[in-house]
Amino acid sequence: MILFWCFVTFLVTLCNGHLTYIAIRLPLQGSVAAPGAPWPHPKKWIQDSEVITLNVQNINIVHNIPGCDVLEEAANRHRDIIQLYDVGGATGNIRNIHVRVRSSVCERYPHDKMDESYSIYVDANVTLTSQTIWGALRGLETLSQLIYVDEKTNQVLMNKTTIHDEPRFGYRGLMVDTARHFIPVSILKKNLDAMSYNKLNVFHWHIVDDQSFPYESVTFPELSKKGAYSPVHVYSQADVAEIIEYARLRGIRVIPEFDTPGHTQSWGKSHKELLTPCWVNSTIGRALPNYHGAYEIFNPMLDTTFTFLRDFLAEIRKTFPDQYVHLGMDEAYPYCWQSSPNVTEFMEKNNMTEYSELEEYYTNRVLNVAKEVNYSYVIWQEPIEHGVKAKPDTIVEVWKGGRAVETNWAEYMANITQLGYKTILSSCWYLNYISYGQDWRKYYECEPHSFIGSEEQKERVIGGEACIWTEYVDGTNILSRLWPRASATAERLWSPRDVNDTEDAKYRLDQQRCRMLRRGIPAEPILDGYCGDYEAGTETHKDVQSYTGYTHYTDLTQNTAQTRIDCHRGSVNCCIQTNIGIITLTFYFLMSTLINKLSFKNDL
Amino acid sequence: MILFWCFVTFLVTLCNGHLTYIAIRLPLQGSVAAPGAPWPHPKKWIQDSEVITLNVQNINIVHNIPGCDVLEEAANRHRDIIQLYDVGGATGNIRNIHVRVRSSVCERYPHDKMDESYSIYVDANVTLTSQTIWGALRGLETLSQLIYVDEKTNQVLMNKTTIHDEPRFGYRGLMVDTARHFIPVSILKKNLDAMSYNKLNVFHWHIVDDQSFPYESVTFPELSKKGAYSPVHVYSQADVAEIIEYARLRGIRVIPEFDTPGHTQSWGKSHKELLTPCWVNSTIGRALPNYHGAYEIFNPMLDTTFTFLRDFLAEIRKTFPDQYVHLGMDEAYPYCWQSSPNVTEFMEKNNMTEYSELEEYYTNRVLNVAKEVNYSYVIWQEPIEHGVKAKPDTIVEVWKGGRAVETNWAEYMANITQLGYKTILSSCWYLNYISYGQDWRKYYECEPHSFIGSEEQKERVIGGEACIWTEYVDGTNILSRLWPRASATAERLWSPRDVNDTEDAKYRLDQQRCRMLRRGIPAEPILDGYCGDYEAGTETHKDVQSYTGYTHYTDLTQNTAQTRIDCHRGSVNCCIQTNIGIITLTFYFLMSTLINKLSFKNDL
Repeated sequence: MILFWCFVTFLVTLCNGHLTYIAIRLPLQGSVAAPGAPWPHPKKWIQDSEVITLNVQNINIVHNIPGCDVLEEAANRHRDIIQLYDVGGATGNIRNIHVRVRSSVCERYPHDKMDESYSIYVDANVTLTSQTIWGALRGLETLSQLIYVDEKTNQVLMNKTTIHDEPRFGYRGLMVDTARHFIPVSILKKNLDAMSYNKLNVFHWHIVDDQSFPYESVTFPELSKKGAYSPVHVYSQADVAEIIEYARLRGIRVIPEFDTPGHTQSWGKSHKELLTPCWVNSTIGRALPNYHGAYEIFNPMLDTTFTFLRDFLAEIRKTFPDQYVHLGMDEAYPYCWQSSPNVTEFMEKNNMTEYSELEEYYTNRVLNVAKEVNYSYVIWQEPIEHGVKAKPDTIVEVWKGGRAVETNWAEYMANITQLGYKTILSSCWYLNYISYGQDWRKYYECEPHSFIGSEEQKERVIGGEACIWTEYVDGTNILSRLWPRASATAERLWSPRDVNDTEDAKYRLDQQRCRMLRRGIPAEPILDGYCGDYEAGTETHKDVQSYTGYTHYTDLTQNTAQTRIDCHRGSVNCCIQTNIGIITLTFYFLMSTLINKLSFKNDL
Repeated sequence: MILFWCFVTFLVTLCNGHLTYIAIRLPLQGSVAAPGAPWPHPKKWIQDSEVITLNVQNINIVHNIPGCDVLEEAANRHRDIIQLYDVGGATGNIRNIHVRVRSSVCERYPHDKMDESYSIYVDANVTLTSQTIWGALRGLETLSQLIYVDEKTNQVLMNKTTIHDEPRFGYRGLMVDTARHFIPVSILKKNLDAMSYNKLNVFHWHIVDDQSFPYESVTFPELSKKGAYSPVHVYSQADVAEIIEYARLRGIRVIPEFDTPGHTQSWGKSHKELLTPCWVNSTIGRALPNYHGAYEIFNPMLDTTFTFLRDFLAEIRKTFPDQYVHLGMDEAYPYCWQSSPNVTEFMEKNNMTEYSELEEYYTNRVLNVAKEVNYSYVIWQEPIEHGVKAKPDTIVEVWKGGRAVETNWAEYMANITQLGYKTILSSCWYLNYISYGQDWRKYYECEPHSFIGSEEQKERVIGGEACIWTEYVDGTNILSRLWPRASATAERLWSPRDVNDTEDAKYRLDQQRCRMLRRGIPAEPILDGYCGDYEAGTETHKDVQSYTGYTHYTDLTQNTAQTRIDCHRGSVNCCIQTNIGIITLTFYFLMSTLINKLSFKNDL
């Protein structure tokens, strides 16, 4: 048994030296991943123990659609990423990576129907094949994750590998709120990098809200002039174009959200007439704390509300290339409408008895406006819950039921898919709700099909998204808060349903977090341990520096990095050893459960 | 009432434009702080509405102990900090800040008995007086916080002010664990900056633990060679000296912790003989998951354990100038000792029947070793709980009882102070235990004297400290996780007990977080809002850049900062308006509580 424990320690140190136990009496569970284990897990992944060596200094990614910018730039990015692994080892053999895309169409923008499947063959040659350029992008990402450094020779290796991969869900999003706190363009771009490293493909940009209106409109520039926190806290048209372009080159769609009728205080800063005047004690325009502001919720009584929105959405349709816009529609609390005698009168005139009918009236008019400007839309779940009929191609986002003391999200998923809508889930992936410890586990274990419903209903689930609301988040903490926690969501949405062993996943996730650190994303740790000299605050590889523009919080003048070490320090034999280790571990744990029920220190 | 709400909005925007509500129906409570409000709150602080203008370009800090490096460097630092406020306004009048220290002694190191009191007079002249250089450091920090920029003229202002200040507690610490994750020197220095901005005066360096041994010992270099995560993850003697020097110049003591007999796996990597061999089924050196490792807990049976520790502590005593060392002594779980027939035999020989007696035996021998090398010590609470007698000048750190399902910390405080020990509290300030929302409030509201005990017992409480255990923390998130949450602890330990209105404090804390951002600390937000163009990810003032060496996660090539805005944008009239606002607000909230019981969205 002494030998056994030494062996386990050896394995953990050698293959993935970076992840360690919480306490010596609580050894890690699960199968240690071989070095170069990709995240998210491919659909089919066969790894041979034989390796090839890479000539990283002269690595060359050759593809078959010359002039296709998406492909050209992806090849350049991944060449740079692969060269990050050049830590001074001997020159390897493989110099060329061949990318063959079957369709020669160089699409300009990623879209909801894009084919992201691909295959990888690492043998005497390294070949990536895909149907489309988008599949090639996903494949290049996986390829660059197969690479690791042999700790003894510093040579850059890849195991001989066959991969056939495609996503389980087509919509794999990340929502960022830029209204509670303004998130600078540089950080949004960094976040798009991280999304691409995790194969997420939709940036849902919750761009404005009650607190601020940072979107600089061409049609109504006064919206941000008066509604932004300050002239610094604004996304100019150039900024927006820069974000969209950056996302496009990474195969990421940008879906902006303009949430109405609630969450619209900041619109009212320049266009007070858009908001409903609320009443207190027979006086118009008065706030009642806990219930409503002085003016709030878009005014459904005025036609001008809808003509304004039509002009506004017409601009948005031109600014953002995606077919979809997110129209919000959540949390339209009725208190202000209830307070207003004018609203009562309007409802009577229009034969409405319930406030939900007024909400429906508002919603229908806005959905019609969206149709007029040829927009398809995503909306939060409320209008559908309240009985509103939306266009058949509407995507409904379930966000409620993720926290305690509420209906479970599974019920909402069952109800909304039963109505025939395409549905995305975010309830269980609100990453702003932090808790102590390994909370990525609960994101990982959230299964979007875990609700009672028919096969047809399950098929209507087109994906999901992680959300970060920024009440307590800004540039200081958004990246370390999102990553690698959002990676858990990313694997759940990409990988087959049966890739769901959290204990195994943690070793790959740890590799993924080290990988992100190496590429300049300040991804926070998931457990005790370490990565390498590219950790935040240490001196980075010069290459990382120049490639990502990643610099640290702190000055880099001091010399903490005396020697270079590598995150994925596994050797070839490591994998065989790992397999023996897995079998031994399995046996050991079966035995040890007989001795005592294991309880591990997890998240809250 | 419309006017009233406009007025409130105006106030919030003008004076502290950065902090906003969670939802329009939930307006902020409390009194908005005037611009230039210091954190922690001084003991006595009288602010006049009249202002003086500063000639920041030529600001000069003149003191009366020429050649005193602590004072010279503090003057330079604060000159640089004051010049961060130079945002292109007209030249002001005041050019000199006069510092008069009564004692002309230029002490080399801060210590447990240093006098940190000071007074500030801002009138026709700006004068700071103190008994010692350490008081002058604290006063310079406060002075630099009184400064703000008039938003209309961009002139740099200070209100006429009188301050008499001294700390409530002499020990105001922050513990950082550098063993679960290695924290680079650059980030530890940044953290010392932040500590000085919040008047914390002890860096408790939990330098080694089970997981790794990053301290490079001169006497036993094999400890870090085998016990560190890697050669990169080591604090060399030069690194340690650099940290101590950096802290010294900021009036911060460095107390290293070498925790025994538990938490010592990493020592065993090179010195296995230090650990007790554990037994399973009559076999030596075997682990039993959930109970013990194969070898763990220092071996109390061997004299060599104590001679090793004596040699080691003799080195530490020379390396670290402070009179105190932290000897740990927490969580010495008995399972390994219980498993060992050798331990049973040893106990029988020495007439021990309880394992706590063995713990006492171990503890006494280590405390004697510490005495031999002329060390005073801090220990965690366990040995004292278990009946061990320690030296009268021992400081006992209460850490248990801070989370649910345990004895409340107040009981521990009562028991330990009753035994006559000097006591510090950390139970309620474990900042690694994150939770959603404004959790700084609970740190702010933790009162170290809130236990049942005599006046003498209360006097034995010499302070407390915030702790950050780094199981889930490293360079990516430590600074944003600590700040401004540790600021809450800092004010509790410095300011008078009756400075305890959390609703009021949030406005000052928000100013403090913006202040820290401006100085290059990535302090995370405490609520919706914004600071200025020096936020993380935006282009900073050139001065910040050169002064702090603060750079961002991301490249700075883009130009998001079109115009310059200032965090503390208050005008002079603002304060008067604030006062009217406070009265009106008070009246309003009294009235509104009659209408409905207010419940605010707080932390979990």
